[in-house]
Amino acid sequence: MPRNPTQISAEGKLLRRIERAAWSESRTHDKSGLRLGIGDDAALWKPRPGLETILTTDWFLEGTHFLRKLHPPDSVGWKCLARALSDVAAMGGEPRCFLLSLALPENAEGEWLNQFLAGLRRASRKLSCSLAGGDTTRRNKILINISVAGEVKAGRAVTRSGAKRDDRIFVSGRLGEAELGLKLLRKNGSSRTSHTLLQKHLYPEPRIELGKWLASNDLATAMMDLSDGLSLDLARLCVASCVGANIYSGSLPVASKTLSSKFDAATIKQAGLHGGDDYELLFCVPDRLRARIPRNLFGLRLTEIGQITRRAGIKLVEPSGKATLFGPNGWDPFRK
Amino acid sequence: MPRNPTQISAEGKLLRRIERAAWSESRTHDKSGLRLGIGDDAALWKPRPGLETILTTDWFLEGTHFLRKLHPPDSVGWKCLARALSDVAAMGGEPRCFLLSLALPENAEGEWLNQFLAGLRRASRKLSCSLAGGDTTRRNKILINISVAGEVKAGRAVTRSGAKRDDRIFVSGRLGEAELGLKLLRKNGSSRTSHTLLQKHLYPEPRIELGKWLASNDLATAMMDLSDGLSLDLARLCVASCVGANIYSGSLPVASKTLSSKFDAATIKQAGLHGGDDYELLFCVPDRLRARIPRNLFGLRLTEIGQITRRAGIKLVEPSGKATLFGPNGWDPFRK
Repeated sequence: MPRNPTQISAEGKLLRRIERAAWSESRTHDKSGLRLGIGDDAALWKPRPGLETILTTDWFLEGTHFLRKLHPPDSVGWKCLARALSDVAAMGGEPRCFLLSLALPENAEGEWLNQFLAGLRRASRKLSCSLAGGDTTRRNKILINISVAGEVKAGRAVTRSGAKRDDRIFVSGRLGEAELGLKLLRKNGSSRTSHTLLQKHLYPEPRIELGKWLASNDLATAMMDLSDGLSLDLARLCVASCVGANIYSGSLPVASKTLSSKFDAATIKQAGLHGGDDYELLFCVPDRLRARIPRNLFGLRLTEIGQITRRAGIKLVEPSGKATLFGPNGWDPFRK
Repeated sequence: MPRNPTQISAEGKLLRRIERAAWSESRTHDKSGLRLGIGDDAALWKPRPGLETILTTDWFLEGTHFLRKLHPPDSVGWKCLARALSDVAAMGGEPRCFLLSLALPENAEGEWLNQFLAGLRRASRKLSCSLAGGDTTRRNKILINISVAGEVKAGRAVTRSGAKRDDRIFVSGRLGEAELGLKLLRKNGSSRTSHTLLQKHLYPEPRIELGKWLASNDLATAMMDLSDGLSLDLARLCVASCVGANIYSGSLPVASKTLSSKFDAATIKQAGLHGGDDYELLFCVPDRLRARIPRNLFGLRLTEIGQITRRAGIKLVEPSGKATLFGPNGWDPFRK
């Protein structure tokens, strides 16, 4: 008689495959605080004393967030978890465990699922977040939902709403790389996935160490991750904080020309201003603490790109001094 | 300038509607331990000292779990949360907060969404579980995913795997009512939703008080909720516990004949044995503690339906003494 409760049905067999592939190391299991994983009605997890729990959830749907023909399955596995963990990074927290809801067509249960689980396992290990449980069903398109539990010291989480007048605005990394990577992928397919721009689109890295460093050193007044593009996300931060901002167009860390030789300067700039999926951090630092932000940290470039203003509205200031209104133009699934 | 960060985009407006409708009482908010809800990168929640966190997630998809033509939208709102909370009940825990992931077609954003949110709000209040956050996107079918955080005293959660030889097997309520309710709904539509069988299908009530009582009094060795039918779910419990069971066919609390006058005895019995969606609790009690289980508790009938055996396999024992093998025949989305 099988010892595992999930072997009683076809659904159970699938759960068993997921469990084996994605969550095999009891070491990670213990570290994450998981007491009971896949195979019961629910998972049990032990929060650590003095910490608050961060909860977040993200859709990752075939046809909306990825294309089966375009995106390698192991990238889908990596990215569905990485982007959910980016929300934990944006609060200054550390990931602990996640729930995977997966709906699969029959023709995705073989090799596609194996590669998906390999990508998911890689993300789970590298980003220290254990699979706690999930739900599976059959569907004609691949539907993925990831919910994450993370932790942060009580009172230390950085929200979007704390930005103050004169705060300096920073971003990590380079903006627009993922958008340019998507353009390359659309043009050439996934044959050269080692290209840096493609890597950024297919295997984004949530900035967990940076977020944690900013929160634990109390350096950031407001923070969020850049998932829908700078123009839309900065607008959200400003509205949440009841402030405005000036962004210095010349300071924006866009994709390097060497990497983006196939794109003209205007395309690179547009991608930097509006392109989504970068999962870099956008954060505000009080003017007096500005010098404490190094130019490089954890292998990441940190760039000051502007300043918070008391008056609402966001302006893009060119090196010439000319200022134009900088409106939200990022990814919004409900825009008509 | 709007104070709320979600008003910056069309997606933000939708989030704001969800927030207003589903989570308006700060009282519930405080009680649940929520420190930060909708509108930031993630939610913040304060677990209570000495408790473990219960995490669970559930799909609720148009075409798979509900039909838009058949199921009233407020039932979809109620049921998507209620069934996820049933997993918390099955561990002996209390719900705290939940994440809602919602994908909507444009034609469901009006009245359908209003009624859906009304049903969800009713469940959220009645079952004491606050909306913490979520994710929304556009899709041609309605896709729902609910993830829940609950709590239980450390070490007191009841799993599926603790059943021992000679334990008495109990169920709450009556089995098969939801299945018969679905049959009525398919035949007559949702015009008479006040019918008890329809209510059971459309507005199931997770047995949270009962689960908590069993766990806190240390009465149950194993427990799970009946979501996929007794035959499949009992088999899961037995496999998890490495035991078998005898079920006394004559003791099964099936739907009353008065309520089910449109169905013959065989249909009622089959629904009791295999019908899904009841969300009653199935639990095992050591023989010596059997007398401590009352016949009625919290307005619920509790019925002893069988006994755990050392030898694997489940038998259905007729009042005549005749025993037949009782195989899993409940809901399995992956069965071919």
